[in-house]
Amino acid sequence: MKYVLGHKNPDTDSIISAIAMADFLGDGYMPARSGDLNKESLFVLNEFGIESPELPELNEVEGFVLVDHNQEAQMFDGLDKSKIEMIVDHHNLGGLALLSPIFIRIEPTGCTATIIYKLYKEAAREIPENIKKLLLASILSDTLNFSSPTGTEADKMVANEIARETSIKIDEFAAKMFKAKSDLTGMPISRVVSADYKEFEMGKFNVGIGVFETVDPAPALERKGEIVEAVRELQQEAGVDYIFFAVVDIVVDMAYLIMPTDKEKEVATAIFKGDLEDDVLKIPGVVSRKKQMVPSLQKYLENV
Amino acid sequence: MKYVLGHKNPDTDSIISAIAMADFLGDGYMPARSGDLNKESLFVLNEFGIESPELPELNEVEGFVLVDHNQEAQMFDGLDKSKIEMIVDHHNLGGLALLSPIFIRIEPTGCTATIIYKLYKEAAREIPENIKKLLLASILSDTLNFSSPTGTEADKMVANEIARETSIKIDEFAAKMFKAKSDLTGMPISRVVSADYKEFEMGKFNVGIGVFETVDPAPALERKGEIVEAVRELQQEAGVDYIFFAVVDIVVDMAYLIMPTDKEKEVATAIFKGDLEDDVLKIPGVVSRKKQMVPSLQKYLENV
Repeated sequence: MKYVLGHKNPDTDSIISAIAMADFLGDGYMPARSGDLNKESLFVLNEFGIESPELPELNEVEGFVLVDHNQEAQMFDGLDKSKIEMIVDHHNLGGLALLSPIFIRIEPTGCTATIIYKLYKEAAREIPENIKKLLLASILSDTLNFSSPTGTEADKMVANEIARETSIKIDEFAAKMFKAKSDLTGMPISRVVSADYKEFEMGKFNVGIGVFETVDPAPALERKGEIVEAVRELQQEAGVDYIFFAVVDIVVDMAYLIMPTDKEKEVATAIFKGDLEDDVLKIPGVVSRKKQMVPSLQKYLENV
Repeated sequence: MKYVLGHKNPDTDSIISAIAMADFLGDGYMPARSGDLNKESLFVLNEFGIESPELPELNEVEGFVLVDHNQEAQMFDGLDKSKIEMIVDHHNLGGLALLSPIFIRIEPTGCTATIIYKLYKEAAREIPENIKKLLLASILSDTLNFSSPTGTEADKMVANEIARETSIKIDEFAAKMFKAKSDLTGMPISRVVSADYKEFEMGKFNVGIGVFETVDPAPALERKGEIVEAVRELQQEAGVDYIFFAVVDIVVDMAYLIMPTDKEKEVATAIFKGDLEDDVLKIPGVVSRKKQMVPSLQKYLENV
């Protein structure tokens, strides 16, 4: 079996890109997930009547296609990298080394779904109706309905084209998605902290960054004490040098960066302007881990 | 100025891909070279009336496009990798890490020229007549007129299409190119050794591999003693852990691997079947550094 796989702690773009890319590649390729789905992804799949992909069966794997990531630290655990046969992504190159040349398509778009849309068009292939709707949801998710600095003209063009063809009302649909994502009901705080968590190599350090995007940060911020505890536990477990967790208010564009120790505070206050109160740095205008948090942290930590 | 650049010690695919990609990108992009041209490249440019590109002016650089390589060790010296804005290549990923996402297109084709041909086609852009001829020369050069295991169906299709459209006779033209490449006249032996030399990180080691492709290995092999001396000097200069130099007979598909010390002999004899005589290991069927030498060496040295 050949699997199409997004990154660990999958977000909506990772899950949808796996589903769409497996459809694009056709026979022999199956979408899989590298972790539990978040509430936004579950909402979207449910809305369009698509089943959630399964975890890959490592002992049955003949090959992998990676979507929405290219760093080893973010790959499904146990993956044999010699079996990677293709990468489609929109992130920065993270230092992966392979023995053989493979097909790699990376573009600085707002999401991987936009690149997959282009692959269909270049191959003059019809996109199935429900895949088209999924791709639109993916674009709205990863660009926060174009309120994030990660959105590009290409994403907008594709989103508008699909919205026209499928009669989906973008703002209305995005609001529903973000409401689903913001829902903390029934989620243990450890899950809130780890649901959208990624690790990066930055200079000599391993850095973990978790993000919780929400249209209403109050319920999460009220549980700040619990969150700090959960972040400390996650840091222990992951064995990273630095760990950050951001509650991101996607309505007013504000990150609340929650930090477990003085070490993180020292780095964060050196990089970002913002108000520090106890363990929380309030950073106006910052919403994107990829475009704003990671590059600043990487630049800083590579020169420490 | 924005430059399109191939790797150090450029081969014909590197030079032609830089010229073609700069044409494809258009205004503001200029092809450059990362070293001296070999006799094959000079012959091809001369044949189609194209001027040799210049070295880039590092103090004028606003951006770079890399073609035909993606490893830092093979980039033009002094290049600031934060200025890389695009990579088009057909080699394995070599561990490059960047701060931001950029456009990356890597395919396991026989040469970079074939990917650039596809870019023109996907954009529905007319390819200028002389660029078309250059692309054909590039394919024939990198696939040794399809006698190397690196050639793919995609390369063949493109080559045949261009040959039809331009009335170039493939076998005849390839023979002329390879004769030009095989010509040792006026070349100091140090230049023969370093002309097509690349460095790789393999596990804990830095490894240099030089290749001299020829339709007649005799003149080079007669100067084996001088070559061993030159390889030793190059190893000193480059400070690599292992260094190999292969005289490759592209008519009968045979590599003569010339090794400066017992260290290289130990590794090479463990990997390749072949007759060892003094400093030369005769390996039948091996012609490709990328597809045959590098993967075997890398696999071995990563597990030492």
